[in-house]
Amino acid sequence: MITVLKEETTEKQRNELISWLEGLGLRVHVSVGDYKTVLGLIGDTSKIDVEMLEVLDIVEKVTRITEPFKSANRKFNPKNSVIDVKGTKCGDGNFIVIAGPCSVESEEQIVEIAKKVKASGASMLRGGAFKPRTSPYDFQGLKAEGLELLLKAREITNLPIVTEIVSINHIPLFEDVDVIQVGARNMQNFELLKELGKTNKTILLKRGFANTIKEFLMSAEYIMSSGNENIILCERGIRTFETYTRNTLDLSAVPLLHNLTHLPVIVDPSHGTGRANLVKPMAAAATACGADGLTIEVHNNPKEALSDGEQSLTPEEFEDVIKQVNKIREAIV
Amino acid sequence: MITVLKEETTEKQRNELISWLEGLGLRVHVSVGDYKTVLGLIGDTSKIDVEMLEVLDIVEKVTRITEPFKSANRKFNPKNSVIDVKGTKCGDGNFIVIAGPCSVESEEQIVEIAKKVKASGASMLRGGAFKPRTSPYDFQGLKAEGLELLLKAREITNLPIVTEIVSINHIPLFEDVDVIQVGARNMQNFELLKELGKTNKTILLKRGFANTIKEFLMSAEYIMSSGNENIILCERGIRTFETYTRNTLDLSAVPLLHNLTHLPVIVDPSHGTGRANLVKPMAAAATACGADGLTIEVHNNPKEALSDGEQSLTPEEFEDVIKQVNKIREAIV
Amino acid sequence: MITVLKEETTEKQRNELISWLEGLGLRVHVSVGDYKTVLGLIGDTSKIDVEMLEVLDIVEKVTRITEPFKSANRKFNPKNSVIDVKGTKCGDGNFIVIAGPCSVESEEQIVEIAKKVKASGASMLRGGAFKPRTSPYDFQGLKAEGLELLLKAREITNLPIVTEIVSINHIPLFEDVDVIQVGARNMQNFELLKELGKTNKTILLKRGFANTIKEFLMSAEYIMSSGNENIILCERGIRTFETYTRNTLDLSAVPLLHNLTHLPVIVDPSHGTGRANLVKPMAAAATACGADGLTIEVHNNPKEALSDGEQSLTPEEFEDVIKQVNKIREAIV
Amino acid sequence: MITVLKEETTEKQRNELISWLEGLGLRVHVSVGDYKTVLGLIGDTSKIDVEMLEVLDIVEKVTRITEPFKSANRKFNPKNSVIDVKGTKCGDGNFIVIAGPCSVESEEQIVEIAKKVKASGASMLRGGAFKPRTSPYDFQGLKAEGLELLLKAREITNLPIVTEIVSINHIPLFEDVDVIQVGARNMQNFELLKELGKTNKTILLKRGFANTIKEFLMSAEYIMSSGNENIILCERGIRTFETYTRNTLDLSAVPLLHNLTHLPVIVDPSHGTGRANLVKPMAAAATACGADGLTIEVHNNPKEALSDGEQSLTPEEFEDVIKQVNKIREAIV
Repeated sequence: MITVLKEETTEKQRNELISWLEGLGLRVHVSVGDYKTVLGLIGDTSKIDVEMLEVLDIVEKVTRITEPFKSANRKFNPKNSVIDVKGTKCGDGNFIVIAGPCSVESEEQIVEIAKKVKASGASMLRGGAFKPRTSPYDFQGLKAEGLELLLKAREITNLPIVTEIVSINHIPLFEDVDVIQVGARNMQNFELLKELGKTNKTILLKRGFANTIKEFLMSAEYIMSSGNENIILCERGIRTFETYTRNTLDLSAVPLLHNLTHLPVIVDPSHGTGRANLVKPMAAAATACGADGLTIEVHNNPKEALSDGEQSLTPEEFEDVIKQVNKIREAIV
Repeated sequence: MITVLKEETTEKQRNELISWLEGLGLRVHVSVGDYKTVLGLIGDTSKIDVEMLEVLDIVEKVTRITEPFKSANRKFNPKNSVIDVKGTKCGDGNFIVIAGPCSVESEEQIVEIAKKVKASGASMLRGGAFKPRTSPYDFQGLKAEGLELLLKAREITNLPIVTEIVSINHIPLFEDVDVIQVGARNMQNFELLKELGKTNKTILLKRGFANTIKEFLMSAEYIMSSGNENIILCERGIRTFETYTRNTLDLSAVPLLHNLTHLPVIVDPSHGTGRANLVKPMAAAATACGADGLTIEVHNNPKEALSDGEQSLTPEEFEDVIKQVNKIREAIV
Repeated sequence: MITVLKEETTEKQRNELISWLEGLGLRVHVSVGDYKTVLGLIGDTSKIDVEMLEVLDIVEKVTRITEPFKSANRKFNPKNSVIDVKGTKCGDGNFIVIAGPCSVESEEQIVEIAKKVKASGASMLRGGAFKPRTSPYDFQGLKAEGLELLLKAREITNLPIVTEIVSINHIPLFEDVDVIQVGARNMQNFELLKELGKTNKTILLKRGFANTIKEFLMSAEYIMSSGNENIILCERGIRTFETYTRNTLDLSAVPLLHNLTHLPVIVDPSHGTGRANLVKPMAAAATACGADGLTIEVHNNPKEALSDGEQSLTPEEFEDVIKQVNKIREAIV
Repeated sequence: MITVLKEETTEKQRNELISWLEGLGLRVHVSVGDYKTVLGLIGDTSKIDVEMLEVLDIVEKVTRITEPFKSANRKFNPKNSVIDVKGTKCGDGNFIVIAGPCSVESEEQIVEIAKKVKASGASMLRGGAFKPRTSPYDFQGLKAEGLELLLKAREITNLPIVTEIVSINHIPLFEDVDVIQVGARNMQNFELLKELGKTNKTILLKRGFANTIKEFLMSAEYIMSSGNENIILCERGIRTFETYTRNTLDLSAVPLLHNLTHLPVIVDPSHGTGRANLVKPMAAAATACGADGLTIEVHNNPKEALSDGEQSLTPEEFEDVIKQVNKIREAIV
């Protein structure tokens, strides 16, 4: 870690700082420039609180050289992690496809979709029971009943189920859920992350729509440092000035995360774009840049004329996507 | 609300949609263009779930004309709200100054700061007991003990206390707190907002660093729709590409929010800029554009050489800020 | 186009506006709501200046339903454009690979790279002669001499050359250049675009790092409306809050642009990420989502120890990228 | 400047780099850590091309400690600059108010507005003759004729005139213009900046809507390094995810720029917000945080019903703004 001191720093202040840092078990390397003095901190700096350091008025700037995350850091754990959900593996060459509707609406709906996506090659079933909605007046999901319906669908199809948690108090309700999803809005709900870190559930951690890669990994670190290393990271689009798409899917995050961490990384092209007609090309792109899986929204009710979802595919379209994804997986081997 | 239908929409589909909308108690006005058909929805559209509507594959785009928030909407409640915290008023000409340290560190520290900021004209005391930190390895606050120390400082100074909540499970601990702060990272922690809506506490709701004004007001709506209308909004900077400042303080949000809502709006120039030398000018600017108050970080321990905080003022600097703020308040009357 | 009028609009004002719009040859459809009145404008609204309309104080908001671009609009020209550069085709299934160094440094350098990238399958040679640099103190390129060296490299390899223009006054200098690149910073240099529209050169138009897809297409429209339809669009990353990558490569722009326009779209994974180790995966991803080509930075001088570029590949690495890209192209057929 | 070397760097490579840097007249201070080696570069690093350095594959990261701008840097020129336009001064306590319409439309219009804004206290007249428009189909201004009309208005009111240039080839046309405005879209049109640097005109340089403070100052540096130091900087809003306002006015840029440079800084609350009802509060805020002036859009033609502009004030509203601004200027003395 590098710490740049302000010009007006007195020698007394500098020495006080250095001895404080050495007290933290670090070696301090001093380099005096024309205007500024630079301290090189050598040793385990992950314990150092950058904000606490920046708070000192003699400090102009602090730059980390080694990343502040340890458990998630590939440098300290070079081998790719493989997350095993009842035999369905993700990571290190194992590719998962999570598919299902945005919300669980009825037993008929979720069971029908589950059967269809399984037939098309999905390895897990997703469906929202608790829905975080921007407006209190919007549909908030079937809640506990939705979880029951997912369990029924699993019973019939044997697909592991993935569903989102929105409150630390719901953890007991998720006892039988296979993969607990932490949504973008809760990526920095640190108390929730700590509690999930005490479970042995697989956590599907989605990137916040305005969070950096580093913040994303620090949130994974919260879960891991509490004892749970079963984490799958999910890129789902970030917020930018562009308005054509609901979010801007940041696919460079996939290879970047693979450089920085050993955890598997999947992509959500449905929320990542907000447009059904972009799901197929972006699923292909995500696969081509090395994603360890996909999570895709699929709906059914063909009876209704008012069917197709803005960001959601029909089972037929989903099957088409999976076929292309599989071809690409062979091509990049 | 305006709903644009895709070109390929059949008359049958269009009529199904129209009768569905009419079933929701809306009048539907049809306007047929060369390429598209536009439906004008007239009546109370706040119940309509835009996402549900956009999900229909015959719908190209949905545009709200009237805002989806009701309780917070100035249109339905034109009078400025006045929030009263034990006699200290905020809004409709009543200006508050919340001051105190980033974190509560010790009784001596918090009591000393409390006395000093009160002497300089602060109307409330702030201090962090539970700290949401990006890294699990960073200091997380004194927690419950920190709350105790705040209560002691209140006992001595009679300043109402403001402190941040980070978990739905801590609400009982905040029983004696005067103003509960919801931080930027929890602005869309909807379960927490709903629970706070069931209390009668004053809620200081901070804008998420990547949330729009509309999302900000919808979060206030969550609290209000659960029954608690004691809300103070706080602009604290948004995330942009600029790296010189920690955030970009969006002061246009102040007059904009005053147009849209009757709730009071205060500004946090400390977190909003992340630089102590920008606090005074931005506090002045916030006051000049009509803010109903400020929340400013102040620290003490003058003994130590390693004192001044990057975004935090000394009591002397704070007094200087307040003097200028008061002059500006007179100028804009 | 939809125009929403403010509540306080008088009937007189409304009628004045309507007759003005009808004077522009539009049919106006009036829909009166509880609070607002909505005008549906039917006919060719591309002539309408939205800003001029928004400027009216009775107008609350204007929403376009049909896009303001005509020549670039797929709706009016459904067939994919094919750009032909001396027999090298781009678009409608024709894939181009533009490769070369960031800057032309010497004859030896550019000729050696040209030979190597041609051998690896590049279809065009790129190289910067005029370099737009953020700092006036940074290397600005070899200028006219650089163009000469590119022509020499073309003479030897027969690869068409692509190079960036930075001033309207340099157009005559680019007489012998095959493809004129307009860089991100000049995407909205409208005077330059108009002049290039009067030439018959192929224009490689790069997306501005903070420009929307719509602005991107409007800039293409500037060139086309001046008479030159030989345009290749290039996504090269947008500016976001993320700092790990120099830019965030917006690959969803590729299928999105293919929906909106008939022009070919290529991708620049080198500038789009700013990191050499991300070029291969992002080139693969761009190909998988349907890009019509790539532009990739390649450098040589293996003698020097200080070789490899942060966003630039060696010829060997480039060959490896092309091999994978070709496999993916077959997979997505 | 700090240069961090990658772990795999050989001693040979490191020494080659060091001797190269020393060859540039720098002293190099080496600090060896557990994983990385850090080089501290001491001396005049402004000549160093960071990108050239980052391009080396042994370099992991380069961090500047001293800013790369010299002429604009307050460190090297501590005294506030005062820009004198025919006796109208800007900077170091001298406050200017530039007012006028978005576009020059007719002699009657521009002369009438000029008289009115002068009466209300404007110190300069603005008006667009050449308009950079996103769409080629939108009104592009009266061009040369517009300049003539501005000169007439100056003849009658003696107000210096400010108008935007959009092409390097128009410089001769601007011979009689007092202040040449470089718009946001041309802030990085470096060839134009260099040419303007060869004139002795006062340049009103507007910040690009997606440019950092550092890039803004580097663009000023382009003009100054070419010989022209008569520059007024103008903050006019940046592009963010917020859609309620056209741009997000970054007022923290005002005190920040005052820390970094000696050049005067003014603010454009009209374009900065895009909403007339936000101009007064944001003009007040800009003044309160120390801006050296304002540029405000004012229009007239009260006869028409279709008058008031979305981001433009009537002369009466303008007068009201100026009265408040003057009160605030006294308050912050």
